[in-house]
Amino acid sequence: MVQVAVMGYGVVGSGVVEVLSEHRDSIAKRAKEEINIKYILDIREFPGDPFEDKLTKDFEQILNDDEVKVVAEVMGGVNPAYDFTKRCLLKGKSVVTSNKELVATKGAELLEIAKENNVNYLFEASVGGGIPIIRPISQCLAANEVIEIAGILNGTTNFILTKMIHDNMSFEDALKLAQDNGYAERNPAADVEGLDAGRKIAILASLAYGKHIYPDLVHTQGITKITLDDVAYAASWGGVIKLIGQVKRLDDGKLDITVEPMLIENASQLANVDDVFNGILVRGDATGDVVFYGKGAGKLPTASAVVADIIDCVKHLSARKYLYWADGIADCVKPYEETSYSIYVRAEAEDKQAALEKASQLFTNARTIVRANAPENEIAFVTDNMTVAGQEKAVDELSKAGVTVKSKIRIADF
Amino acid sequence: MVQVAVMGYGVVGSGVVEVLSEHRDSIAKRAKEEINIKYILDIREFPGDPFEDKLTKDFEQILNDDEVKVVAEVMGGVNPAYDFTKRCLLKGKSVVTSNKELVATKGAELLEIAKENNVNYLFEASVGGGIPIIRPISQCLAANEVIEIAGILNGTTNFILTKMIHDNMSFEDALKLAQDNGYAERNPAADVEGLDAGRKIAILASLAYGKHIYPDLVHTQGITKITLDDVAYAASWGGVIKLIGQVKRLDDGKLDITVEPMLIENASQLANVDDVFNGILVRGDATGDVVFYGKGAGKLPTASAVVADIIDCVKHLSARKYLYWADGIADCVKPYEETSYSIYVRAEAEDKQAALEKASQLFTNARTIVRANAPENEIAFVTDNMTVAGQEKAVDELSKAGVTVKSKIRIADF
Repeated sequence: MVQVAVMGYGVVGSGVVEVLSEHRDSIAKRAKEEINIKYILDIREFPGDPFEDKLTKDFEQILNDDEVKVVAEVMGGVNPAYDFTKRCLLKGKSVVTSNKELVATKGAELLEIAKENNVNYLFEASVGGGIPIIRPISQCLAANEVIEIAGILNGTTNFILTKMIHDNMSFEDALKLAQDNGYAERNPAADVEGLDAGRKIAILASLAYGKHIYPDLVHTQGITKITLDDVAYAASWGGVIKLIGQVKRLDDGKLDITVEPMLIENASQLANVDDVFNGILVRGDATGDVVFYGKGAGKLPTASAVVADIIDCVKHLSARKYLYWADGIADCVKPYEETSYSIYVRAEAEDKQAALEKASQLFTNARTIVRANAPENEIAFVTDNMTVAGQEKAVDELSKAGVTVKSKIRIADF
Repeated sequence: MVQVAVMGYGVVGSGVVEVLSEHRDSIAKRAKEEINIKYILDIREFPGDPFEDKLTKDFEQILNDDEVKVVAEVMGGVNPAYDFTKRCLLKGKSVVTSNKELVATKGAELLEIAKENNVNYLFEASVGGGIPIIRPISQCLAANEVIEIAGILNGTTNFILTKMIHDNMSFEDALKLAQDNGYAERNPAADVEGLDAGRKIAILASLAYGKHIYPDLVHTQGITKITLDDVAYAASWGGVIKLIGQVKRLDDGKLDITVEPMLIENASQLANVDDVFNGILVRGDATGDVVFYGKGAGKLPTASAVVADIIDCVKHLSARKYLYWADGIADCVKPYEETSYSIYVRAEAEDKQAALEKASQLFTNARTIVRANAPENEIAFVTDNMTVAGQEKAVDELSKAGVTVKSKIRIADF
């Protein structure tokens, strides 16, 4: 029998306890060992809870109990999760987590400590909830050079965009509906500003390229400025707007890593990923495009990924899993202004014909797109690849000519 | 440096050699060991081949070389692959394979021999080509009870159906195009009769339920009888016809495991899986629906999955991976006649009104569906769940009333 501890008894933590106890027998069969929860750490009281006897507020009790071999850290946030995780690893306990913020900011250091102490630090649940993605990238696709990863990594923003696309709901109304349904926090900034997706693409990039890419290196833009006008133009162009976390290796060896809204074609496998679902496309040089789809969040999906990691740790108590990346350097990311891509632009102009002529001089291969019931003074077009610096210069020039750019959105290349 | 051997220098074998040599450095980094191909086994001559010096026709040379720790069996077919694999495992060599026929017919025995000899027998490439599916089911979803697996598992038949659906091409023309493109064999029976998909769903079922389900227990029906009339009715019903390998656990604990054409709704994540691509849906009790999508065959995708298994073996030379299932019993599969599902029926009748009235008496909740330009004497309807025995009885009764059933196709429940 292997003793484990669960740190944090919130949504995910209670899910972990539920999955471990309800599937006790089948999990024992798969892990080749019975798994017993010895402690649940939380500062709150849970009177009458069926696991009340396992609850403790004292982290040291877990740390100093040599019987505890595996710890699930599902507290979230960097502090005190960072300190607790470090001390557990140093004490020779394996740690599994759903804590994307901690993995994204301290992953390299914690993986190094795990390696030195011959234990495991696993985090399948940190990206994509219940979707298997960390192991497939690190193991199944190990024979590939990863050319590109692009994913719908945040269920809340995908729910909002789905309502805007299919139900013609405004951003504000869709956000309110997401909050009413419990998909969005009262303060939705981490989701709608793209920070959550930024942490996740940073983790996937670190894994795929072997160097820690810190979240502050990810150019991040949320969906708060997307309007129904843009949604309509995307439809007439033949696609949808999705918030995409993307990383790809450029010819000069640097990484283009961003979170931003993108126009993606209806034919893309990511175009049909709707509501709170996540979809992640991994493009390998040998395997081609592989797409993973499923619930990216939620109590039981996330808990089941945490428990799968616990099972893996129990099966490998004396063997390392070699999940690893080295510390990173800022230099490996291409400055955003120097990256290059196609864009969709929507603008207002008194003289539409003159504005379109000006646009065709300033932007590379600008092609007009139209939508039904457009306001009199509106123009829109799509371009070929231009650097971000070049795009901004062209927008400035357009503005000097009396044309006001209302939207500029990246067009996906996958 | 770890020495490996590749048995079979056909399409997949040459891909394995290509991936191992072209990615030599990055693979060494991931495996923490350099991997060297010491032998390539094939009975054919390859004069002038860059790896000519590694070619051998003598299996015993590989078997008796204790330096060879991992063998990739990519010969295909049961014999002599079965004998070679068994003897390698008994000699303490790990074996990885893309050979679905061998895994489906001899998996339990070979996994047992691998276990007894403390080596690994891995077969990520046997299902879904380059799509990660074996590891995700055995590891990432280990905390789930698998409720159902349903997949488009054969690229050739999916290509043919895609041409029928989107280009209105007949089965015969689409098959010929598949053959011209190299997607289908001169003798296409293994693909179009569903045998290939049957082996794959048998492997996935064995993995998910822990008991060997032999392919002859899988009720298998191909796509040769699908007509453009059925494709048109599926469209007017709101879906497409796909060849689906499916397994689910019934309330009595038995498995419903089949390969057959099914009508699936356009909203299903499998409906957009087109051309030679594969898509596999895994429904877990905790994680919900997870879908894996990618190229299910082809030289490099399949080779990259084989090489990923080689890397895993090299990283675990002294540790077992615990991929395992026990021998199975025929009894665990529900007899096909007793399984129950909804169907679509197309029939010819002199008196359509009388035929529809008769159908509504014989079939459970029969609802008429229509299509444009239907022949005068054609009727079509969909039903609620009925046992297969009940369906066949109703078809017989209908026939006695002068109504000839031309098609009867299962309606998917996912």
